[in-house]
Formats: sequence, structure tokens, C-alpha cells
Amino acid sequence: MIALLTDFGFEGPYVGLMHRVIKARVPSSVAVVDLMHDAPRFRPAEGGLLLGALLESLPRRCIVVAVVDPGVGSDRGALLARCGERWLVGPDNGLLAPALTREDSRAWDLPIGTPPSASFHGRDVFAPAAASLALGRMPAGVSDTYDWVGRAARDYGERVIYVDGFGNVMLGCTAEGRGPAAAPVVGGRPLPWARTFADRAPGEAFWYGNSLGLVEIAVNRGSAAADLDLAVGDSVPLGQARQ
Amino acid sequence: MIALLTDFGFEGPYVGLMHRVIKARVPSSVAVVDLMHDAPRFRPAEGGLLLGALLESLPRRCIVVAVVDPGVGSDRGALLARCGERWLVGPDNGLLAPALTREDSRAWDLPIGTPPSASFHGRDVFAPAAASLALGRMPAGVSDTYDWVGRAARDYGERVIYVDGFGNVMLGCTAEGRGPAAAPVVGGRPLPWARTFADRAPGEAFWYGNSLGLVEIAVNRGSAAADLDLAVGDSVPLGQARQ
Amino acid sequence: MIALLTDFGFEGPYVGLMHRVIKARVPSSVAVVDLMHDAPRFRPAEGGLLLGALLESLPRRCIVVAVVDPGVGSDRGALLARCGERWLVGPDNGLLAPALTREDSRAWDLPIGTPPSASFHGRDVFAPAAASLALGRMPAGVSDTYDWVGRAARDYGERVIYVDGFGNVMLGCTAEGRGPAAAPVVGGRPLPWARTFADRAPGEAFWYGNSLGLVEIAVNRGSAAADLDLAVGDSVPLGQARQ
Repeated sequence: MIALLTDFGFEGPYVGLMHRVIKARVPSSVAVVDLMHDAPRFRPAEGGLLLGALLESLPRRCIVVAVVDPGVGSDRGALLARCGERWLVGPDNGLLAPALTREDSRAWDLPIGTPPSASFHGRDVFAPAAASLALGRMPAGVSDTYDWVGRAARDYGERVIYVDGFGNVMLGCTAEGRGPAAAPVVGGRPLPWARTFADRAPGEAFWYGNSLGLVEIAVNRGSAAADLDLAVGDSVPLGQARQ
Repeated sequence: MIALLTDFGFEGPYVGLMHRVIKARVPSSVAVVDLMHDAPRFRPAEGGLLLGALLESLPRRCIVVAVVDPGVGSDRGALLARCGERWLVGPDNGLLAPALTREDSRAWDLPIGTPPSASFHGRDVFAPAAASLALGRMPAGVSDTYDWVGRAARDYGERVIYVDGFGNVMLGCTAEGRGPAAAPVVGGRPLPWARTFADRAPGEAFWYGNSLGLVEIAVNRGSAAADLDLAVGDSVPLGQARQ
Repeated sequence: MIALLTDFGFEGPYVGLMHRVIKARVPSSVAVVDLMHDAPRFRPAEGGLLLGALLESLPRRCIVVAVVDPGVGSDRGALLARCGERWLVGPDNGLLAPALTREDSRAWDLPIGTPPSASFHGRDVFAPAAASLALGRMPAGVSDTYDWVGRAARDYGERVIYVDGFGNVMLGCTAEGRGPAAAPVVGGRPLPWARTFADRAPGEAFWYGNSLGLVEIAVNRGSAAADLDLAVGDSVPLGQARQ
């Protein structure tokens, strides 16, 4: 499986052209999945935290193409990385870092060469590299030895990394091991905890451990982002440290 | 073929994760089609009427995963159903009911167990059940005998069930057999009938039998929802009963 | 590969139903790619220029289904065309013309017959025709001899044909062979040229040759359409003729 995570949106031909490049190179037995295309635009740090949270949800042999790349065409490099049995390709701008914190993570420089376009490495560099990996081959020019090893710990931070289409607000910290008392504090008020939406009255704000394993601020049948005036990048302290 | 109908939108990783679950379990010869992901949010009744109208458009052996599920994680149950040769899985909140009005419809309780997330049964319950069906197996725990039989008649109602991206307004009643005189009445005025958009001047409101077989209010090259101030849930009486 | 280019948007069941029709008819080895579904709405001229620019990006044996079709159901005809080894199907309203300027282009009348719906030829006429071609068969009723040959030259024009989700503004003229001095003139001011986004400061407007080969007006990390008040159809003269 090849999974795509970008900040392209579904507007325009950008996602389609990545599919076109990949599907012309790999057999139809390799599924290509649009994991998400509305990663926070121009924000590799936040997109990287999302990618880190999503990686465990993907199949073991998955190849992820991640593109949040405001510096495309500059002298920023490109990476090919392995995290356990999963592979990642993307720009070397921090986007892949949170996914590569396991000690067995490895990364290689991915040569960029002179692609047809200086503004669309997703189509011209990263999609072909992913197709290569799906065919069992390292992309041309990748050295035999890796250039980078995983860091020991994630630095997730207590800030908003994503607002979904419902207005749910995801923080960059994992929910596992946090008791209900470790509440996100918004406007000086710690939010109550709930197991899921249906446990709260419509319109009520709460926090819960979402389906990706992250702390999420939500409003049952409403928009937490609108009601609490929260946006990507905002700092949201947690009332209590990990227990 | 597995078809997905949800109210998730294409924002976020939700649709992608459903594809990921299904495609990791079924061979690539099983197509997975995004039928629609903008069913009216939190409204199983309207989404169900859409699903009922769309079902006939799907292939005979199709499996539909339908998720409009504001009560996810509560004690609402889950259903697996058969309508002719087509299969459906989804929450037991009325969403599947309009699709199951044929007398040969059957439904079974789908055990929910303790899924990884209390807030994303689409990924954790319904997608795996659909994959199971696509592999020719009843999902684990489904009883040998069905629990429910189809009702005799649809109760479609004369109200707005969907507004599409063009601003076209679909009512929950079928157009077949209705003469041009059975006009939707908006603001006290019965709308004129047309065969298709091109038969009306730009900007002119009319009604016609749409490509799903429903009564639809439209404006040629414009938005009927904006021009006539119509939204999902609004009541729109028809000027005359079925002839 | 079958590629879809429409003005449907991803809202509603329209794109999904086209996939449904195609995937039920062709083997899973034929990839179906959503090239773009936000071609300028109701504007076959602009959509055609986009299609012309995108065609070279598609694989040699690709079949393109193009639908920007405000006259659906009227007496406008339908076309099946070949441009080199690529095939196209769509309405005969000018949409396919810019793609068919090569001298070896050929077009045939595609009989419409009486499709199930007068308002959705994408599902009922064009998708089945594309599936037919993918199976190596001319659609039923297409004559043995072509009805139309390619014109000698493109007439691209200096106007906005598309604004993407980032707010980047594409003109209908190719960038190849234009020196940096051939600047688009907006508000009496010729825009500076850049190789790519990263070569300009955030917020700065510029033009460059985009990844489709077109002249594009952009703002690094901003929206050129909003900043420069540009929309589809606007005329944007170039400061200097092709060199």
C-alpha cells in the first residue's frame, strides 16, 4: 500500500497527477490511498506530528508519501526513511521527523536531480521514489548506507496541530496514559473529559482520546474550533502532567 | 464493489483510513468507490433517503458502508443487511431503513464488541465487516438467522434531503410517475417543470426528475438553494399528489 | 488508465457514480484517476485549455473523460477523439478542442441515444464510452471513419483559466520559450519572474512556468487570486510577445 499525506487539498490536478505517476509504475495490486490532503498548509511541523500519529494506523509494509513543502525548489533536501517495516519519502524539512523517533528508524538522502518542475517534487521526485520502493527497489542514487538514525523521543508539544472538517481540534500529544484530570485548559477553564461524543450533550465542549490516539477537543454536534476560537498552532496547556 | 457513503467530508484522515482498512483486507479486484462523503451531517434520516435513492444505481453484488453516526460509541447498535443481492452495513439509527423496504430485505445485528476507538466505528466496525462480506464471509458473531425484515413501503416525505455542490436541491420523493403538474411549491409558487437544465434560461428555477430518480429543484447555471433559500430539512410540499 | 476531468466537485454522488460505472466494466488492472473535478464550472473554453495543458502529463494510452457540460440534455453532440495514442470522450461544446490541435488528432461523433438521465451524460454516456475504449472496443454506433481532424494551432489566449486551491492563478498560455521579461501585467505593473516559490519572499507576487507548463501568477505562502483580485476569465496581458 502507498499512502499519500499532503497539504495540496483536492482542488486542482495535484493529487491526481501523483496518482497518475504512481499507478503508471506499480501493478494494480498495490493500493494507493489518499490518507489526507488537508494537512495544515505550509506547516511541516504540525503535519509531521499528524503523520507520526497516523503511522501506526498504516499497514506494516506501507509506503507513505508525505508532502508539506513550502521550500520546494530551494536547496532543502529530500529524504527516504524506514521506520520498522514502513517506508516514508518526503522533503527534509522536519515533516518526517516525528515519524522517525523509533530507535530502529533510518533515513537516507534522496537525490533530487533536475526534476521537470521546480515546484512539484510531489509528482516528480517523491511519487516516483515511492513507486520504486513499491517495486522493491531503492530509488536511483540512494546510497547503500543510511545517513540518519531515529531520535529517542517525540516532542509532541501541547499545541493545536489540526482542525478537522467537523471543527474537532487535535493537539500534538498522545492521550494514552492521561487520566481525565489531565485536561486541556482553554480560556483558563479545564475542559471535562468524555469517552466519546454521545456521552456529552449537544453543544458541550469536552476532550477525549481520539481515534488516532491524540488528545482532541470537541463539541458534540458542533465545532470546537469555532466555539472555542482555536486554530492550528495555538498553544493549549494540559492541566496536569502525564500520570 | 464496496461503496462508501458517509458524512465525513474529504477533510482529515477519516475516509483514507476506511480505504486503508478495506484495501488491506480485500484483493485489488474488489473496487472501493467513494459514493459520497457529504451526506447531511448528523442526519441519518436524510442520509438514509439518499442511500435508498442511490442503491438502485449500484451493482448487484455491491456492499455499501453507510456512516452517518452522531451516536457513535453510545448504546446504539449496528446492522448488517441484505437488500436483494446488495449488502449494507452501518449504524442502527435509521440510516439503513429506507434502503430496506423491499420485502426480501433482511437485517442482522452486527456485534460491536470493544473496538479500538469509541468514536470511529466506520474504521473499526463497519469497514472490517464490509471487507468480510467482500471475502464471502459473514462478520464474526453475526447470528445465522436474521433479526429484521423489510418494511413494505418507503416514507420519503416532501422535504429537502440534500443540497449538492451546485446548489441543486433534492427532495426525498421519487419523480417517476409524477406529471409536470406535481410541482414543488416554494414561497407559495409552484415551480415549472423541465426535462433538463438546458431547457431553461440561465437563472431560472425549475424542477425535474434528477439522475437519481428524485424530485430536484434547480436553477440553470445557478444555485437553487441560495436563490430560493432552501436547506436540508426544509419542508417543500408538492402541488399535486402522484397521478 | 482512465482519467477524469470535470467541474462536478467532490460534493454529491456524481464522481462516485462515474467510478461505479467504469469500475464495474473494466478489470481492476485499469487504473481510474481523478485528475481534477474543479475545472471552472460551466466554462468549457477554460476547462479545455486546462485539459490541453494536462494531456501531455498523462500516459500514452490514457483515456480521458472530460465533462464540463452546461448544455447537457440539449441538442449539443458528443465526441470521441484520439490525440496520438491518447483518447478523449466528452461533450461537443469546445471542451476537447484545445487537446486536439495536433495534426494527427481525429474525432468521431459519439451517439448519445436516449440515456437514462437527460442531466448526467457523464455517468450515462461518457463513462460507458471510456470503459468501452479501455476494453479495446469502439463504443456502439461510432462510425468507422472520423468526422473531424485536428486544427493546426492552439489559441491559448492571455487570460485566467484556473485558480487552484492555493490561490495560484494559471493563464492559458504556455511558459516554454518565454523569457523572464514576458511578464504578466496586473494593474499596470509587470510581475517579476521566479523559478519557484522559495525564490521569493513570503507575500511577494511573481510569475513562473508552473508544473503543467503554463504561465502562473503566484504569491509565496499566499493567494495571488486574493491579493491581485484575479478570477477565471480575467484578461491578463503579457508584457512582451514570445521570444
